Amino acid sequence: MASVDVPVALLGYGTVGSAVNRLLTEQADDIERATGHRLRVVKALVRDPNKERPFRPAPGIITTDFQEIAEDDSIAVVAEVMGGIEPTGEYVLELLGRGRPVVSANKQLVARRGAELFEAAAQAGVQLRFEASVCAAIPVIKVLRESLVVSNVHRVLGIVNGTTNFILSEMETGSTYEDALAGAQAAGFAEADPTEDVSGADAAAKMAILATVAFGSRVTLADVDYEGIEHVTPEHVAAAREMEMVVRLVGAATLLDGKLDVRVSPALVDRHHPLAGVEGAFNAVMLQGDAIREITLEGPGAGGIETASAVVADMVSVIGTTGTGFLQNDACWRELDRLPSGELPSPFYVRVDVEDRAGVLAHVAERLAAHGVSVARLVQRQDNGRATLHVVTHEAPSGRVTAALAEIEQLTETRLRPTALRVVSDRGVPGLGWA
Amino acid sequence: MASVDVPVALLGYGTVGSAVNRLLTEQADDIERATGHRLRVVKALVRDPNKERPFRPAPGIITTDFQEIAEDDSIAVVAEVMGGIEPTGEYVLELLGRGRPVVSANKQLVARRGAELFEAAAQAGVQLRFEASVCAAIPVIKVLRESLVVSNVHRVLGIVNGTTNFILSEMETGSTYEDALAGAQAAGFAEADPTEDVSGADAAAKMAILATVAFGSRVTLADVDYEGIEHVTPEHVAAAREMEMVVRLVGAATLLDGKLDVRVSPALVDRHHPLAGVEGAFNAVMLQGDAIREITLEGPGAGGIETASAVVADMVSVIGTTGTGFLQNDACWRELDRLPSGELPSPFYVRVDVEDRAGVLAHVAERLAAHGVSVARLVQRQDNGRATLHVVTHEAPSGRVTAALAEIEQLTETRLRPTALRVVSDRGVPGLGWA
Repeated sequence: MASVDVPVALLGYGTVGSAVNRLLTEQADDIERATGHRLRVVKALVRDPNKERPFRPAPGIITTDFQEIAEDDSIAVVAEVMGGIEPTGEYVLELLGRGRPVVSANKQLVARRGAELFEAAAQAGVQLRFEASVCAAIPVIKVLRESLVVSNVHRVLGIVNGTTNFILSEMETGSTYEDALAGAQAAGFAEADPTEDVSGADAAAKMAILATVAFGSRVTLADVDYEGIEHVTPEHVAAAREMEMVVRLVGAATLLDGKLDVRVSPALVDRHHPLAGVEGAFNAVMLQGDAIREITLEGPGAGGIETASAVVADMVSVIGTTGTGFLQNDACWRELDRLPSGELPSPFYVRVDVEDRAGVLAHVAERLAAHGVSVARLVQRQDNGRATLHVVTHEAPSGRVTAALAEIEQLTETRLRPTALRVVSDRGVPGLGWA
Repeated sequence: MASVDVPVALLGYGTVGSAVNRLLTEQADDIERATGHRLRVVKALVRDPNKERPFRPAPGIITTDFQEIAEDDSIAVVAEVMGGIEPTGEYVLELLGRGRPVVSANKQLVARRGAELFEAAAQAGVQLRFEASVCAAIPVIKVLRESLVVSNVHRVLGIVNGTTNFILSEMETGSTYEDALAGAQAAGFAEADPTEDVSGADAAAKMAILATVAFGSRVTLADVDYEGIEHVTPEHVAAAREMEMVVRLVGAATLLDGKLDVRVSPALVDRHHPLAGVEGAFNAVMLQGDAIREITLEGPGAGGIETASAVVADMVSVIGTTGTGFLQNDACWRELDRLPSGELPSPFYVRVDVEDRAGVLAHVAERLAAHGVSVARLVQRQDNGRATLHVVTHEAPSGRVTAALAEIEQLTETRLRPTALRVVSDRGVPGLGWA
């Protein structure tokens, strides 16, 4: 096969952009062998041309003028690795409008402005790929779109934020949340301002993208209920261990009776579940569907070279399939309603702090039963006239659990407000049907 | 995008073939939305046209005459789901020779005759895809070829046989090998003649294919050293548990100093390693490479609908990329030598049964040290004048461990022939460098 020289451009030349250029340069032979193409960076947009940069490109490639890229019709694909929403979104829209395929590593852009971006791509008949926007080098978008095309995926479970997983893993070794966060910052896994990660917002953006692709219906960041790990305590971690579970920040996108629910929250994960083994800053996504039962992909969910690896794979796929009509359309083809709040069923872990008096267990169990919530496992711990009940329920709609907890809070024996966390389990809790 | 009707054919209409037809029929809308194409089975080759079949096709589609498929130039892609080597191989060669793309689910065919099949495909400029030949619905071939194109994968670790993993999982609950095998047969996870699975031959064929794709050098079944699980005993399982490990049949393909080593054998896997959590009949493959660190894919490695899902994904990918030159070439582009026997380094688990006499531990340790094998962990169990030493070594070339064991066997205190199993570990054994 004759080698074909393919000029490409980068928006941004930071950690990811320079790694993309490095991979395209150093692995040019590998790429050509696999695809017949040699991709060559001819322009890279930056704000400050004088900044020191790793893997500095040849003179004439760095530019501060977006129009040099927009107007160069020889460029076959542009990789957007600059981040941010503005002016990034306008740049991508202009490129797509000019019939230029784009690859984006920008989860916030795809999650917030996906609808207009994909509309522009469809109108121009060009591809917009975004593998690197979710979980870096883990190829979950390609697998969902190309490998699981006939699988009717109905559930996506994910640990999609490495910072929070690192912190929760550290807490398993006895750290407090504050110490674990400081450790994550020292190790470079958390930003100085960790809000985006620890609040669940980062995971929510990724789950919005995954849900959109998996269910074919647009899910934006505003559609995702999310809660972070700021209120996870060593007591949660200890209670989880006692139940043979671990605490993880779990994203869950569910298609139920034609309605969808997408959420991110701390959850207790059974030790035998594939997501429980995801340690440190790693990510994992479990895809459940009709024809495949479940497939789990695990790997590093962040990092410059890992993200660049996904960007390059997308660029190569764009070049390899341009003009075929293959996967040029948006993944969205329907508009699904959201499942009403409180209707998503799940097993729950419930913690109730009570006075240690005769009959208190019966009172708590009665309130759960009154709302149709049945108990799968219960551990009671007494201490100095007080007792803590750790309950794992069978699967129940969250609204019923919430209603039962409101009544339990009113019991005279109850000392603290009861708390609940979702449980991600395997066959250990009957009836969950995750398999 | 206008719908394009795409006639396709099947070689074979058994469990997988009928599931392919069912998926293509029932998910035709999904496929068209994703790709713009409607794939329609127009011919299906069978031996006995009168046999009762699930999802029976319309009249005129079932045929016993291969030439009806070979000579029909309207057929865009043929899925080989009949199995076997002959006449299957000749059929596939003829189809490729006629410029017809082929998708194969046949691991034995791809592992044994890959070289001539891919040569024929390259000559005709058509694709031969084979995702379903390894681990059913787990898209490891697509991920290796398309997503990890710049990753320099240097190691593939896999649990690629569900039957043996089911048996080993059962043995963890206390079963003997014989009872676990009978249970696997009763549950439909093992054949009446389980030799292909329990001997490691099935896993070896899959590892040959994975190594070929990962390293770009042809690896055939004859290049794979393999050993099965027939000699795994409850004592191995108990010793593994004591070391916080589990016994698994592990395939390992390694690229070291430009030479390759591919093997399948029972191994002890550290509980924290992603492969340790693979339970029952599931499969998992871990890919380790420069740009990605490691990515693990886990899911069902067998099953009619799961395999069919991968076949359909390959058919859709072929149709979507025909004429682009994308991934039409063989994955092989170099000829790597095999690593000489005994040179592959690994940590090992070594079991030595000795008389419980003063100095025996020193004698054993001396023999290991004499060959440069250092001890990472040691557990000694005494019983009635006898002792069993359970040793986990640091990483060492297997030849050195073998040489040390030969000398330990000659010690006057040694009662039984010492045995060794490879260890797949994580940071728990320093220097392994799996991460």
